[in-house]
Amino acid sequence: MIRAEVTELVLSQKRMKGLSWKEIHEKVSISTSPIVITAALLGQMRLEPNEAAKAAELLDLPKEAEILLTEIPYRGSLTEIPPTDPLIYRFYELVMVYGTTWKELINEEFGDGIMSAIDFDMTMERQPDQKGDRVKLQMSGKFLSYKRY
Amino acid sequence: MIRAEVTELVLSQKRMKGLSWKEIHEKVSISTSPIVITAALLGQMRLEPNEAAKAAELLDLPKEAEILLTEIPYRGSLTEIPPTDPLIYRFYELVMVYGTTWKELINEEFGDGIMSAIDFDMTMERQPDQKGDRVKLQMSGKFLSYKRY
Amino acid sequence: MIRAEVTELVLSQKRMKGLSWKEIHEKVSISTSPIVITAALLGQMRLEPNEAAKAAELLDLPKEAEILLTEIPYRGSLTEIPPTDPLIYRFYELVMVYGTTWKELINEEFGDGIMSAIDFDMTMERQPDQKGDRVKLQMSGKFLSYKRY
Amino acid sequence: MIRAEVTELVLSQKRMKGLSWKEIHEKVSISTSPIVITAALLGQMRLEPNEAAKAAELLDLPKEAEILLTEIPYRGSLTEIPPTDPLIYRFYELVMVYGTTWKELINEEFGDGIMSAIDFDMTMERQPDQKGDRVKLQMSGKFLSYKRY
Amino acid sequence: MIRAEVTELVLSQKRMKGLSWKEIHEKVSISTSPIVITAALLGQMRLEPNEAAKAAELLDLPKEAEILLTEIPYRGSLTEIPPTDPLIYRFYELVMVYGTTWKELINEEFGDGIMSAIDFDMTMERQPDQKGDRVKLQMSGKFLSYKRY
Amino acid sequence: MIRAEVTELVLSQKRMKGLSWKEIHEKVSISTSPIVITAALLGQMRLEPNEAAKAAELLDLPKEAEILLTEIPYRGSLTEIPPTDPLIYRFYELVMVYGTTWKELINEEFGDGIMSAIDFDMTMERQPDQKGDRVKLQMSGKFLSYKRY
Amino acid sequence: MIRAEVTELVLSQKRMKGLSWKEIHEKVSISTSPIVITAALLGQMRLEPNEAAKAAELLDLPKEAEILLTEIPYRGSLTEIPPTDPLIYRFYELVMVYGTTWKELINEEFGDGIMSAIDFDMTMERQPDQKGDRVKLQMSGKFLSYKRY
Amino acid sequence: MIRAEVTELVLSQKRMKGLSWKEIHEKVSISTSPIVITAALLGQMRLEPNEAAKAAELLDLPKEAEILLTEIPYRGSLTEIPPTDPLIYRFYELVMVYGTTWKELINEEFGDGIMSAIDFDMTMERQPDQKGDRVKLQMSGKFLSYKRY
Amino acid sequence: MIRAEVTELVLSQKRMKGLSWKEIHEKVSISTSPIVITAALLGQMRLEPNEAAKAAELLDLPKEAEILLTEIPYRGSLTEIPPTDPLIYRFYELVMVYGTTWKELINEEFGDGIMSAIDFDMTMERQPDQKGDRVKLQMSGKFLSYKRY
Amino acid sequence: MIRAEVTELVLSQKRMKGLSWKEIHEKVSISTSPIVITAALLGQMRLEPNEAAKAAELLDLPKEAEILLTEIPYRGSLTEIPPTDPLIYRFYELVMVYGTTWKELINEEFGDGIMSAIDFDMTMERQPDQKGDRVKLQMSGKFLSYKRY
Repeated sequence: MIRAEVTELVLSQKRMKGLSWKEIHEKVSISTSPIVITAALLGQMRLEPNEAAKAAELLDLPKEAEILLTEIPYRGSLTEIPPTDPLIYRFYELVMVYGTTWKELINEEFGDGIMSAIDFDMTMERQPDQKGDRVKLQMSGKFLSYKRY
Repeated sequence: MIRAEVTELVLSQKRMKGLSWKEIHEKVSISTSPIVITAALLGQMRLEPNEAAKAAELLDLPKEAEILLTEIPYRGSLTEIPPTDPLIYRFYELVMVYGTTWKELINEEFGDGIMSAIDFDMTMERQPDQKGDRVKLQMSGKFLSYKRY
Repeated sequence: MIRAEVTELVLSQKRMKGLSWKEIHEKVSISTSPIVITAALLGQMRLEPNEAAKAAELLDLPKEAEILLTEIPYRGSLTEIPPTDPLIYRFYELVMVYGTTWKELINEEFGDGIMSAIDFDMTMERQPDQKGDRVKLQMSGKFLSYKRY
Repeated sequence: MIRAEVTELVLSQKRMKGLSWKEIHEKVSISTSPIVITAALLGQMRLEPNEAAKAAELLDLPKEAEILLTEIPYRGSLTEIPPTDPLIYRFYELVMVYGTTWKELINEEFGDGIMSAIDFDMTMERQPDQKGDRVKLQMSGKFLSYKRY
Repeated sequence: MIRAEVTELVLSQKRMKGLSWKEIHEKVSISTSPIVITAALLGQMRLEPNEAAKAAELLDLPKEAEILLTEIPYRGSLTEIPPTDPLIYRFYELVMVYGTTWKELINEEFGDGIMSAIDFDMTMERQPDQKGDRVKLQMSGKFLSYKRY
Repeated sequence: MIRAEVTELVLSQKRMKGLSWKEIHEKVSISTSPIVITAALLGQMRLEPNEAAKAAELLDLPKEAEILLTEIPYRGSLTEIPPTDPLIYRFYELVMVYGTTWKELINEEFGDGIMSAIDFDMTMERQPDQKGDRVKLQMSGKFLSYKRY
Repeated sequence: MIRAEVTELVLSQKRMKGLSWKEIHEKVSISTSPIVITAALLGQMRLEPNEAAKAAELLDLPKEAEILLTEIPYRGSLTEIPPTDPLIYRFYELVMVYGTTWKELINEEFGDGIMSAIDFDMTMERQPDQKGDRVKLQMSGKFLSYKRY
Repeated sequence: MIRAEVTELVLSQKRMKGLSWKEIHEKVSISTSPIVITAALLGQMRLEPNEAAKAAELLDLPKEAEILLTEIPYRGSLTEIPPTDPLIYRFYELVMVYGTTWKELINEEFGDGIMSAIDFDMTMERQPDQKGDRVKLQMSGKFLSYKRY
Repeated sequence: MIRAEVTELVLSQKRMKGLSWKEIHEKVSISTSPIVITAALLGQMRLEPNEAAKAAELLDLPKEAEILLTEIPYRGSLTEIPPTDPLIYRFYELVMVYGTTWKELINEEFGDGIMSAIDFDMTMERQPDQKGDRVKLQMSGKFLSYKRY
Repeated sequence: MIRAEVTELVLSQKRMKGLSWKEIHEKVSISTSPIVITAALLGQMRLEPNEAAKAAELLDLPKEAEILLTEIPYRGSLTEIPPTDPLIYRFYELVMVYGTTWKELINEEFGDGIMSAIDFDMTMERQPDQKGDRVKLQMSGKFLSYKRY
């Protein structure tokens, strides 16, 4: 069994049982960010053993799938680059359009280094708006300086 | 003269005059987001004529460059994909790792559609933290529903 | 089961039952555009639950396929870019040849922004012509302005 | 002198003289579609000699540029595929999402063949709409049947 | 069943029955070009129902394969570009070496337009030659003019 | 001076002197195929010294350009693959659609080997046709057998 | 059954029977180059029927595999380019580093043309050397001149 | 000055002075392989200072070009992969067709390791043949074993 | 059975038996580097027969898998380039950022040549550090000089 | 002036003045790693203002080049991927061959996370060896854990 099969199985069980990610998140690990839990079930993060056990029970997963959910995955969720799906492409487009701007402004504020994509967290919420609700994302990543030795 | 030459000229003048993006933003259009103003000067957004005039004066730009800054650019700031620069790459990596997760959660919350990358705004700020300061980004894009006709 | 398998199953059942897209459209949702219904059955749009039920009955699809037809798909119908099929390639060619022209004329008329591919509709019809009938396409997408915040 | 230099020169002269595509179209060949005239000036179509003469006079182009405008260009307006510019990308996205749908429906209606991208015309206009104006495109291409010999 | 499986099945049956393309052509549709019939059996063209029936009988194909042979295929016979097979690559090489020459000479003779790859026919025959026999190809495609509207 | 500059210069001189390829062919080497002569002037074949001298005189080329026209070029006339120009693309499409068919039929007729793209000649002519004139191409390449040693 | 499956089967049988290529070569066709025989068993060349029969007997191959070994394969042994395997990559590197040198020297010696990769043979042997044994390759390909017609 | 400019200058001077690679080799370093000397002048190997001095004198190169010829170059002589030039492509094709065969036979003879492309030499000569002269290449590279530590 | 299936089987058995690479290394060949043993089990190096026997016993592998572990693999462990997994990408990034620096410094110290990736060894260990433990890698590769013959 | 021009100028001045990287390192900042200083002069890291002043004096660089050396560069030293230069390619090959091994062993030792390529240092030295001197590289990067929030 490989991780991609676990992801496919998770999606199939979620579908047939009529579960939402919100319900799964509540059952598996309400104290952790739903982004982390969903990403793990999609093969991009790992679950703690007790979380994997709950997920396996909720979704009727076999033992090997449960163990695989606790393993560190080979990350990369997209099957092609650039992503063909419009929702995901828009994020890709933001990187293409604003990439150099982010670099200039982050480097000016923090000096030489990067925003970590590892020591990183984010939230996503609905922002009500008369002209149409908005998707609000907050991201925060530790700044890491280029070190000299 | 093409837009890429304007960008190169802007960077050269900024360098030789010892200006920061913060100073340029303050002089050109303090009421607008520094991300928009910086992006425009890097060839990704457009300036209003009075802003372009101020930018041209501050940076000693020729008339054609000033007009070009008011034109709608052919967007795309990266010369290669994936971006080789580590700071920009980390954002690209976030899309690759979390792309499918964002899709699942946004679609579950909002239904079928996307977060606009056009009706979109963002802020970037320093988030002090004992374990190392963090880059904090807030993004907000209008949700657009797939319509049926 | 994954969406690609549903698409393959739909095509196989349509073939063996001798159905046309027109007949399927009439049975599944005559009030909606045939483009939307066909696209959904090809894995690019979603059906409403009652439409999916009708499609499943008409095409003898299993329950999971029926549910999958109501899910928001990971869009992207082409297995390779540029598309090797001549009919589809011609549309791709139009984008390559006229892309910058469309940008110039739309931006001149509407200002900075894009034509939405989400709040979008289109029709396709036969246009009789003595020199050979023509394919007539009408597309209409909401104009979205780049916003400043 | 090569065609790309003509295009760059056209854009520069248009900018410095403050002309719009609409004004250029009116002066160069009002009876022809503005899409054809604009595409020619962007290096994708050819002008008739008298049109090129008018364009050269209006835009102060040298003789070789004027002749080049009457030559059949090596077509292809995009410097990279997929196009990074959001406005142009949306058209590209439509091909990716609806490509197989168009193929199915056109083939069902017309039989085996393609819509010509050569014997092809299109119009673009503003469609007023309370919820936001729309870009309306009408395309019509001759249907070409695969022939057997 | 998908078209690629039909192609694989055709090749397997042809192999086990010891048939040549020539024999298949004679049995399926001697009045049509062998290129068209072979291309159809390789998944690139369509057969008429009576031809498909003969092919199915000759090659012991199941009913769905027979129907699939009458469907308009998603064209594109090469699994990778550029083609790795030397025989096919040589044709690809001709396009790379002579592409611009063909464009110049066809455009000079016919004006702006293309040679159709749809209203197109070709023959292939052996040309005896003392220094070594030659492959002789004759191609003829309708010239299509760029139209102005 | 490099070959690409010679090609650009040839095209520029041809344009300014109002010469056609036909006229150039007649003056440079009427006994050779116009395809070879045109290809040489476009940087894909070589001219004999006396032909190059005539071409240089006709087109006012400097001495180094004249010598370069007699050199064996680094072949490859297309700046991008697949070719974006519709006329050239159609030939590319023929390779993609008929590539495997040509392989099957040539191999069946001649055995294991290829059609040479080196010991190769072709002609192009106008084929009058009531339904629209056609481009007629005749190609003939020596068959080369895979040898065993 | 497809050729790739034959190759996989050959490798599996060779492994389980503990055979070397040398032994297979001796049993199948000692008079032919081991490179040709090995290449055929790896799906890149064809065997004569009597050779295929011997190979099938030695390796316990089914009838269809035996016939497939006599067919002209779709050549191309590498699953990705550039090849990731270091041994094969070194040959690829030689082409990249010495490609233009080979062209200059072969063209200077022979005139305009190529070394055939079809009428081609090679040998590989061990060259004892005190500083470490060497791989010695001898290649010989017929020179083919560009012909003018 | 960069190495590519030296290569272009070498080719231009060689052309204008009517020198062959053979003559250059004889004057620069007759005791070294002509492949090495030619490769160095094409920017792929380095010359010894005295050789560079002779080359500079023979070809009237400026001092910086002479020094650059003694520098270790950034290797890679091809501007695109796969190479479009037919002569060079044939070598590339040999790697694609015989790559896995070479791997099997070298590994069987020598064990796990590679043929060095660094401790490597080769010769190229004309092999007279009644059926057409042949290009004969001899290559010899040190075998390097994968070591375990 | 192919090598990729062995790798998948090894990972599955390791998972279900709860083994670590450290434990496997100790059981299979403690005297060899854990990097070599792990790489072999991941399909990138070969094991000695006695090591493969121990691995097969420990992991309950079938006989063909055991033999495959002793075969020289077709190397290349990444399914896509650039690698999407962040841990592996960082190494790729180091090559992109420091590649030219390594070349300059190694060439300055050793002359023209390369560091072997074949006669190569490395160790990986944890380096305790108050500010956060570090990954310490030591690599050593034989320097190979470009030879002249 | 852009950074690539500074790099080219640095290399030209170093060449004409006969300086080594070692000498430059000693004059510019002996207390910093030669890898950092060389990388900065090659456009991949930044220098401190006093270091840039020394470099500018030593290499006769203009003022803008001096300032550019203190700016944070857009990183990425390779003009093509995979790198064609054999020395740099070997490092790339190590990532391809050992990438998954490094991931397994680092993750097993440290848990989920990566080795930083930002908080990273390395040394390169000559390791004398009777069988041929070796290139010894020591790398150390801070381990960064995936955090959960």
